[in-house]
Amino acid sequence: MEDKHPKPIRCKAAVCRAAGEPLAVEEVVVDPPKAHELRLKIVCTSLCHSDVTFWRMKDFPGVFPRIFGHEAFGVVESIGEHVEGFAAGDAVVPTFLAQCAECADCMSSRSNVCSKYRFAVRPGMPRDDTTRFRDGDGNPIHHLFGVSSFSEYTVVDVTQVVKVDPAVPPSTACLLSCGATTGVGAAWKLAKVEPGSSVAIFGLGAVGLAVAEGARICGASKIIGVDLNPDKQELAKKFGVTHFINPKELAEKTVSQVIIEMTDGGADYCFECIGLAAVMNDAFQSSRAGWGKTIILGVEMHGAPLTISSREILHGKCVMGSLFGGVKPKQDIPILADKYLNKELELDKFITHEVGLKDINTAFDLLLQGKSLRCTIWMDK
Amino acid sequence: MEDKHPKPIRCKAAVCRAAGEPLAVEEVVVDPPKAHELRLKIVCTSLCHSDVTFWRMKDFPGVFPRIFGHEAFGVVESIGEHVEGFAAGDAVVPTFLAQCAECADCMSSRSNVCSKYRFAVRPGMPRDDTTRFRDGDGNPIHHLFGVSSFSEYTVVDVTQVVKVDPAVPPSTACLLSCGATTGVGAAWKLAKVEPGSSVAIFGLGAVGLAVAEGARICGASKIIGVDLNPDKQELAKKFGVTHFINPKELAEKTVSQVIIEMTDGGADYCFECIGLAAVMNDAFQSSRAGWGKTIILGVEMHGAPLTISSREILHGKCVMGSLFGGVKPKQDIPILADKYLNKELELDKFITHEVGLKDINTAFDLLLQGKSLRCTIWMDK
Repeated sequence: MEDKHPKPIRCKAAVCRAAGEPLAVEEVVVDPPKAHELRLKIVCTSLCHSDVTFWRMKDFPGVFPRIFGHEAFGVVESIGEHVEGFAAGDAVVPTFLAQCAECADCMSSRSNVCSKYRFAVRPGMPRDDTTRFRDGDGNPIHHLFGVSSFSEYTVVDVTQVVKVDPAVPPSTACLLSCGATTGVGAAWKLAKVEPGSSVAIFGLGAVGLAVAEGARICGASKIIGVDLNPDKQELAKKFGVTHFINPKELAEKTVSQVIIEMTDGGADYCFECIGLAAVMNDAFQSSRAGWGKTIILGVEMHGAPLTISSREILHGKCVMGSLFGGVKPKQDIPILADKYLNKELELDKFITHEVGLKDINTAFDLLLQGKSLRCTIWMDK
Repeated sequence: MEDKHPKPIRCKAAVCRAAGEPLAVEEVVVDPPKAHELRLKIVCTSLCHSDVTFWRMKDFPGVFPRIFGHEAFGVVESIGEHVEGFAAGDAVVPTFLAQCAECADCMSSRSNVCSKYRFAVRPGMPRDDTTRFRDGDGNPIHHLFGVSSFSEYTVVDVTQVVKVDPAVPPSTACLLSCGATTGVGAAWKLAKVEPGSSVAIFGLGAVGLAVAEGARICGASKIIGVDLNPDKQELAKKFGVTHFINPKELAEKTVSQVIIEMTDGGADYCFECIGLAAVMNDAFQSSRAGWGKTIILGVEMHGAPLTISSREILHGKCVMGSLFGGVKPKQDIPILADKYLNKELELDKFITHEVGLKDINTAFDLLLQGKSLRCTIWMDK
């Protein structure tokens, strides 16, 4: 029986008190869910580069103290008023992107960006901008993306939570919450990679390798990975990458020239998974005239604009961008979970490390040093 | 019976001897077609902004003397060796874009840019770079786009000529050779405008108004035209433009802000038909998050790059460009001719003036002064 009048919960959370500082595991109070909200017991979570971006950010929307984390798996602990379709005990993943099912975007198959609850890096919850977290002294702690999963319990809006088949292991379901879905979705849903096609991926972090995995299940015949880290060459093979280019090792040719030669004219699909304007242009130049698509997934680190040749695009090229790989969370995450359970989609290879919540700063170190793809952070360890 | 051994023909042509100078109608010699070529008797031609661009160009690929003109209707006069599917007397339009039917691009439904005979602004014919025109002193005269239709006779490659239903009047068929096809094609083939959607068109020249005509036949419910020339407001109504914005008349808002308000979030499809990087960005900003497409048709006048927000594209936006509106000449021009004959597609409204070849410089004046959309230049008048 679920509690009809849930109380505040005291639990542990990893709190960040200042930009770039190590997280401190401390006791926090998590308020009950308000209307249209659910409180989740987080089973495991992982660290994504977007957490790091906002962890480093000194100025707004960088706010502190804050609980980071937006890639997670959990179980519904309690539900607020007007929440339908969920019950305590449901296996779920939270998502940074909302799906309200009512707005023009959610009603359309063409969009995955809810226009009623637009994605924005707010300090609070999406409907009322207030927080559900307080520290031991009763002071509010801010949210990240309305998820804040680096806590044993968190509160999320009903539009930002998706039920998943409990047959999917928690650490795998966690990947579907953000990174793996973004990359796989970008190949499958956004670019719609066709069998036999050529794909070039710029940046072989978790998202880039998930693009490779997505391209592999779509039947791409040539998957070219581009990364400055030579260690990625061997790793990338596991994800279906057939050719590796380290731009540092090119003497006389540009990356684009090499890709154009490898693909006899340019790759059919080029994905930018880093977030650098210069690399976005490399991707564009590497794409095939006639039908080449360049897909921007990276958030430009310095806010620089996308700058490409206005002449070259006239030769039938296309540039598109997306949040969450074009995936509609409530519709598509269950499809990806099914593909995993059917052994079509391989996800476990993304998990390279695991730690307990008390060692969460190790997960930061591993990611920053380029040693991990995904480090599962178990809340009960 | 067609002549198996065609001879050089002496005829009149409008020759340009130096950048920006008036054309001189003089007698030229037109060589017989070589292998894979046809010689056409031009019935009528018209002036397109691209002619003007290269007419003004002092440096390469601006070369002189040159015969301009690439939008035309004619009749096959003679054919070279290895030309199949054409006979003397066939009604045809030449096209600046080739379709070889053999390369990967021509074989694919996704591309309209032949990769065997790539579009390039050569001074000569596509296969051997030589010219088929000589002046009275025997000196060569250069081609434009392999068409050069400002001549009573011209030679074109078999990949650059399309048969049209002779039921289409010559002056109308002429429009299908370039401008009308580019605009209508961009809405129909490239953007694939959906019924009930909103369209914004930046620049209401012949191509922009042809986009409006294409959007109208695709069932767009809101067609917003943007132009600095106030005379376009009334004219545009004939082409299905439902709302007109003159950026000069906006005091406190940008064009994009006005379009976003008019369309409750941004237009579904935004077309840039001028060739200015700043306007390309206006079009992008006016496009709807979630699924907005920006279609670049204009050739940037100063060679400036396309520069847009790398953040904004992540919200599901897309930018694409095309030559000839994504139309495959040999496949799609006959479809457009049928749409015209079925009274679905209205083309005659594009013809605002007509002159004889001797008055061809009047056609330049009318276009440069913004007074004409298309001026038919009749070769026999």
